[in-house]
Amino acid sequence: MNYRMISYIVGQIVRVEGILMIPALVVGFIYDENVLAAFLIPIALSIISGTLLTIKKPANTSIFAKEGFVTVGLSWIVMSIIGALPFVIDGCIPSFIDAFFETVSGFTTTGASILTEVESLGYAVLFWRSFTHWIGGMGVLVFVLAILPQADTRSVKLMHVMRAEVPGPKVGKLVSKIGRTARIMYGLYVALTFIQVALLLFGGMPLFDSLVNSFATAGTGGFAIKNASIAAYNSAYIDYVIGIFMVLFGINFNLFYLLIIGHFAQAFKSEELRWYIAIVLGSTALIAADIYSIFGSVGESIRYAFFQVASVITTTGFATYDYNTWPALSKIILVMLMFCGACAGSTGGGIKVGRIILLVKNGLREIKYMLHPRAVVSIRMEDKPVERDVIRSATSYMIVYIMLFSVSMFFIEMIEECDLVTGFTAVSACLNNIGPGLEAVGPAGNYAALTGASKLILSFNMLAGRLEIFPLLMLFAPSTWRNH
Amino acid sequence: MNYRMISYIVGQIVRVEGILMIPALVVGFIYDENVLAAFLIPIALSIISGTLLTIKKPANTSIFAKEGFVTVGLSWIVMSIIGALPFVIDGCIPSFIDAFFETVSGFTTTGASILTEVESLGYAVLFWRSFTHWIGGMGVLVFVLAILPQADTRSVKLMHVMRAEVPGPKVGKLVSKIGRTARIMYGLYVALTFIQVALLLFGGMPLFDSLVNSFATAGTGGFAIKNASIAAYNSAYIDYVIGIFMVLFGINFNLFYLLIIGHFAQAFKSEELRWYIAIVLGSTALIAADIYSIFGSVGESIRYAFFQVASVITTTGFATYDYNTWPALSKIILVMLMFCGACAGSTGGGIKVGRIILLVKNGLREIKYMLHPRAVVSIRMEDKPVERDVIRSATSYMIVYIMLFSVSMFFIEMIEECDLVTGFTAVSACLNNIGPGLEAVGPAGNYAALTGASKLILSFNMLAGRLEIFPLLMLFAPSTWRNH
Repeated sequence: MNYRMISYIVGQIVRVEGILMIPALVVGFIYDENVLAAFLIPIALSIISGTLLTIKKPANTSIFAKEGFVTVGLSWIVMSIIGALPFVIDGCIPSFIDAFFETVSGFTTTGASILTEVESLGYAVLFWRSFTHWIGGMGVLVFVLAILPQADTRSVKLMHVMRAEVPGPKVGKLVSKIGRTARIMYGLYVALTFIQVALLLFGGMPLFDSLVNSFATAGTGGFAIKNASIAAYNSAYIDYVIGIFMVLFGINFNLFYLLIIGHFAQAFKSEELRWYIAIVLGSTALIAADIYSIFGSVGESIRYAFFQVASVITTTGFATYDYNTWPALSKIILVMLMFCGACAGSTGGGIKVGRIILLVKNGLREIKYMLHPRAVVSIRMEDKPVERDVIRSATSYMIVYIMLFSVSMFFIEMIEECDLVTGFTAVSACLNNIGPGLEAVGPAGNYAALTGASKLILSFNMLAGRLEIFPLLMLFAPSTWRNH
Repeated sequence: MNYRMISYIVGQIVRVEGILMIPALVVGFIYDENVLAAFLIPIALSIISGTLLTIKKPANTSIFAKEGFVTVGLSWIVMSIIGALPFVIDGCIPSFIDAFFETVSGFTTTGASILTEVESLGYAVLFWRSFTHWIGGMGVLVFVLAILPQADTRSVKLMHVMRAEVPGPKVGKLVSKIGRTARIMYGLYVALTFIQVALLLFGGMPLFDSLVNSFATAGTGGFAIKNASIAAYNSAYIDYVIGIFMVLFGINFNLFYLLIIGHFAQAFKSEELRWYIAIVLGSTALIAADIYSIFGSVGESIRYAFFQVASVITTTGFATYDYNTWPALSKIILVMLMFCGACAGSTGGGIKVGRIILLVKNGLREIKYMLHPRAVVSIRMEDKPVERDVIRSATSYMIVYIMLFSVSMFFIEMIEECDLVTGFTAVSACLNNIGPGLEAVGPAGNYAALTGASKLILSFNMLAGRLEIFPLLMLFAPSTWRNH
């Protein structure tokens, strides 16, 4: 293990995080809030410790997969610990575990909250809370890559970091020129965010609200600054703008990149994209029909159905209605979308549409194989055969996912003694980085009532879901730390 | 497709089923019940049609995997249709769909019931209902094999039938001499059943009750003849006898075979058996501790915990207590055991302990593989490396299982608009061949309130679970019936 290099990278990230807290401090000044200590202490702490860790570049800069995973896992934990400090020092979230949970939820773009009364918070902490979504969204390391051009950006070690950071089965050709593509992706991310801000301002939303809601949309996070979430704005226009942008941020960023460089045909040939859009439209239609009796109007039914489908499939977690009160069919569709997730290579969580297509194709192939044992049945995706390793890793991911899910649910139930739906959906909402679940942790409830131990387990789930499980498991595996 | 051979085998099975209905008729005579029509019509129907179908042996007796699966799937459906007739003609279950559901539940040893008032039924129909468990238990085809020695028992076509019939990842060496081993397994099955009958009689249970409860235990089915299930006997001795026999019938019959031929060391080397016992003991201890506050006595807590663990892990479904009222931890353990299931090659349902060990080992291997991408990590089971195909088929099974589970749950929720726990546990209780679920379909409720469409979907799930999914999917795949 190249400990020097790991601490060097973590140090860089910590320093950047300190810089990223400055806008929140500025917001505090604008609104004349007393948040100097709450932000200045963590800013100073992270910039100083980050600088100390990076003062001397290690002689040996080569890291391998293992170090890459450890670095990523460690960075997210360290970032969340530092990011929790403003809430604790400000006093709006006095318990450190609560603040840690909230920050992990922010950086992992989950959006699960322990706050029961979010409107009582100051502008500065609300800004920081939503900003963590935006930072988490594209993965802080891509961020670091994009704003800190370094000599070694193109080296293989960063590929390992990338591999753990960008969600989904594969990073694709974007990795080939990692520094440049990171900047392009980041540019796209910023551009889309600001288009959304502009559209929300146009719809009459205040600037502050437009900014923080766009941050939460871009990261597919879902932290709201109103107790009623997006329902507070009570505007069909705003619902549709946010709904459409949630869907957009759930699309693989590789595809936006292809669009920008003019490869339209290639982008629209994506099987994952076509399925993603089909699932969004199909689910919206089914739910709209199912909830028609509640709203009594086709327009309203579609509006609420579309928003909730977009929010859940992209694992954002914004709410315009308490879907806990919807009929069973709508609820089961939403629960399934929670697991489905958006496209690989987006800011969304969940299992990912692409991976599910692979798993379903694998299942169908196995049935064919049982019929014709000697036939060679290959799995094709986008008209190309899929490599054996990709299938294997998708199925293995699924199994590890189920294992982690079962163990977490077991402990949550053991600790909380809550009803099964609450335990089940709490774990799925955190592991899939969605935010709200059903029943006690539903869109109208939150995670405040859980014990500290459960909050730590769910924080682990949020991090594991965000980092595709393996980096985090690795961090806690004893064999990782054995010297060999 | 060798249609002639398929109808020949199905005909044999139908004829045997007719013969197997005779004991129920005899029971009716003994208790002086008016069931002549209820049993004589189906008996005559099946013996005559079975004889007509088998009057001439097909010239071409060779069948392949596809025909094997189709035969198995078809037999179970035909058997269930005929087996439902006594209930309909007798009038105790007037709706044919209800009677079909009940019979499928019997033959698949699920134990899910639509009867709200089982004690009002006559002895003859109760006997037939429980006898379907016993017949289903070892698979009617193994049964046919054992009592009808044929010239072609050793031919490869029966291996295909066996392969679909005996649950679990692999049939093992038992298949090598299929006719002989089928008879040995059947002998074991009969012997164990009658030891249990004797022990129950010794505990003061009436003969009729001892017989039907032993049938339901042997098949790990769970149909009770009392509204309160086994709780009606209110005896710790009876609870322990039935509990221990449920656990015994959940053990791989290969192992009993090894014990009988004196290979003790080999039998106890079974990793699956060791895990199975560890899971039973561990779950019993955890649940006993969790429910101690309800019973206030260590002995009672262990008694109820052990019985329920044995009932759920072997997917029998007998109840001595309404575990719906137990704390959340106990409920979640029971739900997990529902999915876990007993050993491969037993009469139990579920995913099977052996398959779960394989999946967990595969998950752990993938983590190792991420750490050391160039290392060759092989999966070992019982100190022997596991073949790639076995792992692949276990993971594929899991994926197809999840697909079927999701689709079924989706339709049940759409049709019933019931709460999520009812829908979720109804599908898992049927697909895993357990019987009772939670909430509306819990141990104190039943499936009577569901619509006909849901009952058909759940019947499909019971059959799919019993036949390890593939034969049944195959039966409904259009490509199976295309002529080529």
